[in-house]
Parts: sequence; structure tokens; C-alpha cells
Amino acid sequence: MIKNISDKVINRLTLYHSILSDYIEKDIEYISSPQIANLLHVDNTQVRKDIALLGYKGKCKVGYKVDDLKLLIEETLKFKTVKNAFIIGAGNLGMALAKYDNFEAYGFNIAALFDNDPLKIGIKVNEKEVHHLKELPKLTNKYNVKIAILTVPRIYAQEVTDFLVKSGIKYIWNFSPVVLNVPNEIQIWNENLIGNFLQFTVNHEV
Amino acid sequence: MIKNISDKVINRLTLYHSILSDYIEKDIEYISSPQIANLLHVDNTQVRKDIALLGYKGKCKVGYKVDDLKLLIEETLKFKTVKNAFIIGAGNLGMALAKYDNFEAYGFNIAALFDNDPLKIGIKVNEKEVHHLKELPKLTNKYNVKIAILTVPRIYAQEVTDFLVKSGIKYIWNFSPVVLNVPNEIQIWNENLIGNFLQFTVNHEV
Repeated sequence: MIKNISDKVINRLTLYHSILSDYIEKDIEYISSPQIANLLHVDNTQVRKDIALLGYKGKCKVGYKVDDLKLLIEETLKFKTVKNAFIIGAGNLGMALAKYDNFEAYGFNIAALFDNDPLKIGIKVNEKEVHHLKELPKLTNKYNVKIAILTVPRIYAQEVTDFLVKSGIKYIWNFSPVVLNVPNEIQIWNENLIGNFLQFTVNHEV
Repeated sequence: MIKNISDKVINRLTLYHSILSDYIEKDIEYISSPQIANLLHVDNTQVRKDIALLGYKGKCKVGYKVDDLKLLIEETLKFKTVKNAFIIGAGNLGMALAKYDNFEAYGFNIAALFDNDPLKIGIKVNEKEVHHLKELPKLTNKYNVKIAILTVPRIYAQEVTDFLVKSGIKYIWNFSPVVLNVPNEIQIWNENLIGNFLQFTVNHEV
């Protein structure tokens, strides 16, 4: 297995995977690197380099076998390894993520949602139940969940994070627009939407 | 002005900006690079390098002046340049983005939302109206909007994208988990949530 794949490569591999899934739906057996490059508006050399990294060589003239390449990406990015996660905050963003297309295909299992709004407790979103936040320590333990996806409003984010850490959560995928203060052993992944948007606008003269 | 700031630097600068906003709320006048590095669990050298890129040097022992550094980041990332955008799809994700904390502070103005569900037309989300998708060409023209944020379900994404392109949209921030096929002059920015999540899990043995 390849070690330390860069974030950019991971990002591109998931996009290639999405293209390959489309090709399979359309019953197309082979794909070439220029076809992938063209759809993503990236350089063909880049695509070939990424795929060579997986140790896969296409056939001359016909390209890559779609299902082989798809499987290889799934193995490399460990789609078969189940990653249980809780969504913290059953607002619009939490609901959107709970319903997100096909997370399971990537090994990503949303076990439950949590909120402190009494009106939301007990409802089901995409078959996942919304629990009161106070149930978190018990359920973290019961289902051995280490990942929390934080979608609460900015002003509650730090307070809720402190509670997550106390409840045994080790990894936080943070969608709240705030930098969280956590002990060193806790891993935070900031889903920095503002940063992602500005990456788009700053260098493209939008 | 600095040209071609890398995506990673832009991402970090927005996180520094978020920390600086917190410091201002707490009436703290100076911040040091180790304080920033510590909050983000990144290397101090990295923080100093990023800030040096802005042409700003901290004072020995006291560090950076919080409001100066904040302003400098805002200038570099062009927060004052208004970027008008439409949200396409008034589902949970579209709603969440329309309500997103403080987008305006970054020059990001959501002008309106669009959907084709008659029950949603005319409602207001965070003071922005939901219009029928058929109004898009007229309103794109009227408000000179070039950016669309695509949050429709996967199966409609390509069809809606074709319509966006025909309506005069030039930049698409794509939240749908699909690779869109567009003419070369259209810029797509894939908000690849799956890719972002896998960046988190693949190399961290989650």
C-alpha cells in the first residue's frame, strides 16, 4: 500500500473515481487519460502520473480498464474500511450531510445525529436518529465512534467541542467557521468553506 | 499585490483570519506565531513563512499587531471585492450555505437562490429569495452574476449545469458529488466533500 498520498492526489483520485462510476453506469469498458483530463480540465500528464502512482499501467491505445482502475482507487483510499461518525448539529448542514449521496460507498457510515433542540430529538434523517447531545458519551462508547462531524453554529462550536473531547471523540471534521482549541492528541480537520471559496476567487480574477 | 498564492496558503490565511477575529472580540492587541501555530497544530515556521509572504514583520517579543495582520489578510484575499453568487438548489445544503455565518465579511454576496419546487418559490432564506430556475437567465443578466453554487442532487447536476452555462454563468462552485462536463471557458471548482473526508482518514489511520 502507498504511504502518505498527498491531499491533492487524494482529491483528484476521488474525482477520477466519480468519472469511472459514471462510465460504468454507461457500460463503457475503457477510459483514456486524456478523457479524464478533459473532463476535469487538468493536464493529461498529471492524470497519468496519479494513476502510475497506483502501480497501474493502461493498455496502449485503449487506455485503462474502467472497473480495474475503479477498484484500485477504492483499495488505495480504503473505501472498504468502515469509518463510523456522528454528526453534531441537526441543522440544515447536518441534515444535508446525513442525506449526502452515497457516503456509504466510501466506507463512511453516519451512525447518528445529535442536537440539543427538543423538537429535533427522535426524528430520523435518512434512517439515522437524532439524539440529545447528553447521550453522546454513552453512544460514543457503545458504538466505538471516534469521528465527529461538527456543524453547530460558530458561537457554540468551542463549548460543544470541549464536550466532544470529554466524551471520547478523537477526530473532528469541523464545518463551523471557527478555529477550535483542542488538546494535541485530538485531530481536527477544518472544512474551511471560506478558504475553499477564496482559493477559487483569489487566483482566478473572479 | 502578491500573485498566485497557493491554495494551501489561502486556506491557512483564512484560518489565521478567523483566529485574529476571535482575538479582536477578546480585545487582545498582539498575537505571536507560536500562538497561531499552537491553535492550528501546525509548525511555527510555516506560520511565520505565510505571514512573511504578506510582507509583514512582527515585533520582537510582542509578535504581530492583531488588527494590522487581519487587515493585511483581508487585502491579500480581496475581502472587499464583492463577489455576487446564486445558489442553485434550495435543499438543506443550499439553505445551509444561504445562512452561512458571515459570508458577507469575505465579500461573498448570495444574491438569490433557485429551485424548481413550486413549494419553495418565493420563500426567503436569510433575506434572500428563492426563485424558479426558469428566472435564472433574466436575473443573471440583471444582477450581472457570474458565479453559481451548485447544490442540486447528483442526478440533476449535469442537466442543471448545461442550463447554467446557457444562462451566462461563468464559474461554478460544485457541491454535487459528480464531475460536470462543461465547455473549456467555464471554470468549475469542485467542493469535493468525499475527497476532503478521505484526505482526513487515509493518511491518519482513522
